[in-house]
Amino acid sequence: MSSEGGPTSPFSTLSISHPTEAITHVELHRPEKRNAMNRAFWSEMVDCFTQIADDSECRVVIVSGAGKIFTAGIDLMDMASDVLQPEGDDIARTSWNLRRIISKYQETFSVIEKCPKPVVVAVHGACVGGGVDLITACDIRLCTQDAWFQVKEVDIGLAADVGTLQRLPKVIGSRSLVNELALTARKMYSDEAKNSGLVSRVFPDKESMMAGALELAGEMAARSPVAVQGTKMNLIYSRDHSVAEGLQYMATWNMSMLQTQDVMKSAQAAMEKKSPKEVTFSKL
Amino acid sequence: MSSEGGPTSPFSTLSISHPTEAITHVELHRPEKRNAMNRAFWSEMVDCFTQIADDSECRVVIVSGAGKIFTAGIDLMDMASDVLQPEGDDIARTSWNLRRIISKYQETFSVIEKCPKPVVVAVHGACVGGGVDLITACDIRLCTQDAWFQVKEVDIGLAADVGTLQRLPKVIGSRSLVNELALTARKMYSDEAKNSGLVSRVFPDKESMMAGALELAGEMAARSPVAVQGTKMNLIYSRDHSVAEGLQYMATWNMSMLQTQDVMKSAQAAMEKKSPKEVTFSKL
Amino acid sequence: MSSEGGPTSPFSTLSISHPTEAITHVELHRPEKRNAMNRAFWSEMVDCFTQIADDSECRVVIVSGAGKIFTAGIDLMDMASDVLQPEGDDIARTSWNLRRIISKYQETFSVIEKCPKPVVVAVHGACVGGGVDLITACDIRLCTQDAWFQVKEVDIGLAADVGTLQRLPKVIGSRSLVNELALTARKMYSDEAKNSGLVSRVFPDKESMMAGALELAGEMAARSPVAVQGTKMNLIYSRDHSVAEGLQYMATWNMSMLQTQDVMKSAQAAMEKKSPKEVTFSKL
Amino acid sequence: MSSEGGPTSPFSTLSISHPTEAITHVELHRPEKRNAMNRAFWSEMVDCFTQIADDSECRVVIVSGAGKIFTAGIDLMDMASDVLQPEGDDIARTSWNLRRIISKYQETFSVIEKCPKPVVVAVHGACVGGGVDLITACDIRLCTQDAWFQVKEVDIGLAADVGTLQRLPKVIGSRSLVNELALTARKMYSDEAKNSGLVSRVFPDKESMMAGALELAGEMAARSPVAVQGTKMNLIYSRDHSVAEGLQYMATWNMSMLQTQDVMKSAQAAMEKKSPKEVTFSKL
Amino acid sequence: MSSEGGPTSPFSTLSISHPTEAITHVELHRPEKRNAMNRAFWSEMVDCFTQIADDSECRVVIVSGAGKIFTAGIDLMDMASDVLQPEGDDIARTSWNLRRIISKYQETFSVIEKCPKPVVVAVHGACVGGGVDLITACDIRLCTQDAWFQVKEVDIGLAADVGTLQRLPKVIGSRSLVNELALTARKMYSDEAKNSGLVSRVFPDKESMMAGALELAGEMAARSPVAVQGTKMNLIYSRDHSVAEGLQYMATWNMSMLQTQDVMKSAQAAMEKKSPKEVTFSKL
Amino acid sequence: MSSEGGPTSPFSTLSISHPTEAITHVELHRPEKRNAMNRAFWSEMVDCFTQIADDSECRVVIVSGAGKIFTAGIDLMDMASDVLQPEGDDIARTSWNLRRIISKYQETFSVIEKCPKPVVVAVHGACVGGGVDLITACDIRLCTQDAWFQVKEVDIGLAADVGTLQRLPKVIGSRSLVNELALTARKMYSDEAKNSGLVSRVFPDKESMMAGALELAGEMAARSPVAVQGTKMNLIYSRDHSVAEGLQYMATWNMSMLQTQDVMKSAQAAMEKKSPKEVTFSKL
Repeated sequence: MSSEGGPTSPFSTLSISHPTEAITHVELHRPEKRNAMNRAFWSEMVDCFTQIADDSECRVVIVSGAGKIFTAGIDLMDMASDVLQPEGDDIARTSWNLRRIISKYQETFSVIEKCPKPVVVAVHGACVGGGVDLITACDIRLCTQDAWFQVKEVDIGLAADVGTLQRLPKVIGSRSLVNELALTARKMYSDEAKNSGLVSRVFPDKESMMAGALELAGEMAARSPVAVQGTKMNLIYSRDHSVAEGLQYMATWNMSMLQTQDVMKSAQAAMEKKSPKEVTFSKL
Repeated sequence: MSSEGGPTSPFSTLSISHPTEAITHVELHRPEKRNAMNRAFWSEMVDCFTQIADDSECRVVIVSGAGKIFTAGIDLMDMASDVLQPEGDDIARTSWNLRRIISKYQETFSVIEKCPKPVVVAVHGACVGGGVDLITACDIRLCTQDAWFQVKEVDIGLAADVGTLQRLPKVIGSRSLVNELALTARKMYSDEAKNSGLVSRVFPDKESMMAGALELAGEMAARSPVAVQGTKMNLIYSRDHSVAEGLQYMATWNMSMLQTQDVMKSAQAAMEKKSPKEVTFSKL
Repeated sequence: MSSEGGPTSPFSTLSISHPTEAITHVELHRPEKRNAMNRAFWSEMVDCFTQIADDSECRVVIVSGAGKIFTAGIDLMDMASDVLQPEGDDIARTSWNLRRIISKYQETFSVIEKCPKPVVVAVHGACVGGGVDLITACDIRLCTQDAWFQVKEVDIGLAADVGTLQRLPKVIGSRSLVNELALTARKMYSDEAKNSGLVSRVFPDKESMMAGALELAGEMAARSPVAVQGTKMNLIYSRDHSVAEGLQYMATWNMSMLQTQDVMKSAQAAMEKKSPKEVTFSKL
Repeated sequence: MSSEGGPTSPFSTLSISHPTEAITHVELHRPEKRNAMNRAFWSEMVDCFTQIADDSECRVVIVSGAGKIFTAGIDLMDMASDVLQPEGDDIARTSWNLRRIISKYQETFSVIEKCPKPVVVAVHGACVGGGVDLITACDIRLCTQDAWFQVKEVDIGLAADVGTLQRLPKVIGSRSLVNELALTARKMYSDEAKNSGLVSRVFPDKESMMAGALELAGEMAARSPVAVQGTKMNLIYSRDHSVAEGLQYMATWNMSMLQTQDVMKSAQAAMEKKSPKEVTFSKL
Repeated sequence: MSSEGGPTSPFSTLSISHPTEAITHVELHRPEKRNAMNRAFWSEMVDCFTQIADDSECRVVIVSGAGKIFTAGIDLMDMASDVLQPEGDDIARTSWNLRRIISKYQETFSVIEKCPKPVVVAVHGACVGGGVDLITACDIRLCTQDAWFQVKEVDIGLAADVGTLQRLPKVIGSRSLVNELALTARKMYSDEAKNSGLVSRVFPDKESMMAGALELAGEMAARSPVAVQGTKMNLIYSRDHSVAEGLQYMATWNMSMLQTQDVMKSAQAAMEKKSPKEVTFSKL
Repeated sequence: MSSEGGPTSPFSTLSISHPTEAITHVELHRPEKRNAMNRAFWSEMVDCFTQIADDSECRVVIVSGAGKIFTAGIDLMDMASDVLQPEGDDIARTSWNLRRIISKYQETFSVIEKCPKPVVVAVHGACVGGGVDLITACDIRLCTQDAWFQVKEVDIGLAADVGTLQRLPKVIGSRSLVNELALTARKMYSDEAKNSGLVSRVFPDKESMMAGALELAGEMAARSPVAVQGTKMNLIYSRDHSVAEGLQYMATWNMSMLQTQDVMKSAQAAMEKKSPKEVTFSKL
């Protein structure tokens, strides 16, 4: 499933492939640099997911990492000038520029959330720093037995600012654990990741994980995209709103979406004891 | 504990009984249809819980299902005309009607949340589709070892719109799992339901579960209704607000509620080493 | 680590010590009264944490209880006049006074949250009523094998009003469990506390727990206080806001905080394969 | 336009008439009691507006008062037992009942806001206490030259609790004025009502005002009900949300509503230089 | 009404007097410095209003300025070290200190809002910079014909940060005007202040204004403090919440407050055609 | 001030000029089509304001219209296919596409708000439909005596969905007036626009208005851009948040921004009695 030849154009840090027509596989692909997130990566992710959001063929996305680990996080060498030596005539102007840079980097992972297609992320080996920001913006997290996770930022003197502090507490249930991870930068291994709910499944190795990811993606890709993508968008809306607000938005959403022919097709299939996979749904 | 003769008037889909004076047992009761939620059900639930909310005798509610399973979810046959063939002169008017219908159906489960009495739900066998919407609106969830849960909606071409997408993520701690369940419609069995926190207890069979539910209900019914119902209402308020907001509301709530004689009665009982069950509290 | 001689001035209910220069140990210290929270306690906690917040030497706080248990909760005897016989010419005026009292008591634990330094709480034996309010306002929770927790308020006729109902549901992932605990006042033991995520670690006994707490505190104290305290403050902000709001606040926060020399120091240490502990950071 | 014979069944305090097929006129009709709001009124308003909300013929509502003044506000004599002598075994239980009563009374005016049809209110003479609660829940306010308005509640020892304190500050632009009116119970006359924006038009007398109200209602009734009622609902949504939230809701709303045939009809009429009044729109 | 002898102890910048038992007059009193806000002022305001909030005799507060103008705003000379040369080992630490200072200064005016007693502010001559922050936190604003207002901050290179940008747009109705004032630092004179709703009344001179303020304060002081102070607190709550939220809070508030004897006293007075001023209400 | 030769590249509907180095003038420039908003316009506005946001020379923006009127609103002819005949295999898919289109169009005006530079809009003649959406997203509104405004959407069968319903009620103080305008599509003339606060100034003709706009822009351009742009951003933040939230954000913002050298420069100029215009501030 990995694209052996390395990144396809136009990306230098991502390799895109299509295991099936409806599934897009985005592979972090700087294996020699442990998929460290360099300057190019931060903008390529935005371009990549903007394209995916508009690609009506694509119904599900899988994200994984090439090489030995998922990602070592930010590539400090490449990013140093942005983060460590920002420009500005005085402190206020430097701060202004930093704010713009941080906001831009935040967008790199927010595009995953804004993309209506479900995103499955499959982690093997290490997932460090920016990697945790990335995976918390994905919808479903899988990992291998040997995977570990580290909210690294506090070790380099800063509070994580591109998503981990915002999303991690909404992703796993134990606040005490979230605080411990973020405040001490200790590693969390796969079993704790599973118990805490960070990942929903652990696989013995990368190969079986990728097969599992593909199967999971296939399940979602086979279902009505109106149903699947509407579900993702409303789950994210509900996370950030009260139950009453979420219900009101949902009713307004479904007043049109329920009029899809997919409901009729699905209902008929159900009565005929067919699997959703045997139904063909239009693109969205 | 089941009401053998079937639904009592005035309900055709619910059977109401009173295991004790202070406990109301609401049983989904269309066993021959696997308690599928038909048109009558959606309005009877509202009437039922409106009555319960006003019934000052009742202090706790138990919800369970008659027959082989808890519920098969929506009764598509009976509901088809509403959902699949809504009326309207044009798309906007059809949408308008659909929105009204969805809002009405949402209310069916929101009444459980608005009812100040704690609601314990006891699930055996299957809990499918609308069943998950129902149980996430209850306060405490129990199940049998053979129970399974399925967010079914995506299988019939729609995003779940009467509560699951709004409440499930606030009910269990793992976002990855919530997404997986809602996006793939896969079944979740009782052990995973327990581990993820969807249910707080699993029982070997329905009989022991109903006994457990009754005991649990008895614990709550024995305590001050001012304390118990105020606790429920503030827990729900807090879910949908910041901590600071929740605290402010709580202080405003308790400025009167603390003046209840129940505090004095309870304090005295505590000093006399009596159990709360030995104290008699006025109705609320 | 316990301050044997009992509370140091100026507190009568708290004993303050400094295991290391950067760690402040706050010990609930009325062991003969099972650390019950009397009138003095409620105001001393505010003074204590206000001082800690302003003490630039202090980087981490540990809270524990002296004697046989962590705390028996509110000292009803001492507090009775406030809570049970509030003053007022009529019901409205009594309510007004009660509201002021409750708000003041809420502040007792909110100061823990407002204090930017991470607070580790170590619970042994029992943690009852007000004790649960206290620990849910701390950042990281540890306990001994023999610890148990009880949301006691419903047993004395009132809805918990100084933080438990607001914070507990945001601290652990299972809503069904939260409801059960708050509505029935049943005890939760250490294993369930660990599984539900209330505590992140369980230790065999108090001694090993205090050692563990000290080590954990040491990890945090060794890191950049700009990073650590900024992380705490943004984690709390994020809990009460949408992800988008949290990200915006974070970017505004870090536009200045990233300009700390600690990043450069940490980055350099990282490149030299040094541990954060080998770096000296200025006070904050 | 007034229904001379007095209230039509089934209401004893409201007289309903239909100046045109699409306009419903609701007249407060206890002229001998200066339209004081008695026990019957509070529930009849709910019934009345619930019917109107479901009446697809009705497109606009006019509210006015019969007799010498618009309304003298709450009928203290009739309401005294509810408000002044609420039942309850202790203070908490009495409070509980009061809360239920207040919530019910709040609903009386909230139904006006929930009703998707625009509501024009025409005030002559005095509008006191509950009258201000009522008119702030309406969409457009008109008055006669001799009209005056009084937030009376503070004069009878209570904070206005059925809408004035919540809605008045969102209805007029000067906070200093709102505070003065609510804190001193002073009268505001029609010129100040116009200048402050409480009313959008002042008429010399009741007759001209009713003619003006009818003309205004006619303008709205002639336009697409999909457009008009969607506008009302989104204006109310926007009042209570941030701009970004309002825009997101609006986009979700209009994704179906824009598919109405009314747009095509209206566009065609516009090109043919016809007035909207010459177009026939389906009922909603 | 002015306290000629200058500030009474314990304040050096404020003069406190009591025109009547129930009215507290707080006078900015550094006339020789045009009541510029120096270091002492910022903390004395907090002490002053904290005392007032707890003073059950006091029912209404009047704020005015001694000497030629209301206030020239911040005393840059005295404050320079705080604001212009904040301490800190690096930029992050300096920022940290600045944030603490700003938050403290914000509190200086927020105490006015948190004080449940209504605050009438009477402005003569100039009200510049910090003066605008101050008056927007008051409840009712009066001014003399010769008064002018200036949001001065942008002229000294900073965005107003102690309340003007937050409160001014919620105080007056024209956003275009608010923006113009804040972005250009132009003066606004009394007529525009009246038309825009910033002040609710303009008086020919200071003497008549003080008389007017006293009369207005007397109106409020004569009414039930339960009603008046509850009104203020709910008006502020409503400003910051949706209508539905405000109503829910109001109902919870009044479930106890309606049980005040003041309602009965007021109702009886009303029936006997007495003015509220003839009724004696207990202190609050 | 108008760019006679018509739109400069790269825009076909906008003409960009620079009256001074620090002021950018954006002119709607399809005078022969009454500046109707065609397909090109909607994307050019985004490009234009994105460039302006990044242009550190630019400190203030003026928006006006070329030719006889400001704008006739949406160019229905050019837009018809998007809005009237959206694509999609079924109703849900058509709705999905419409939502994407509406969101994109909303962004056209939201960019004005996101641009940190103040935007002054100068309206002459008519401002219809989309024109009102545009101007409510600007910061300061000016108009000529002959100007009129019309919320036109309800006349073409739809609820305004690109900003008017969200922003207009936050821009002017009278809710009754907002509702009347939006529900009846009646014209509002310049005097009512001034009285209601929609515009802050009315000029006799376009020439004097443009001179006034330029002078106003000059005032803002002369001041510290750190102060001016920070003010705009915090005014917008405050509009959408509670006062407490706004204050917290402001403190976090200014902890860095107060460290600008502009404060010192401005303070020094003030002491030397110089105007801000005599100070040179660095670009931002």
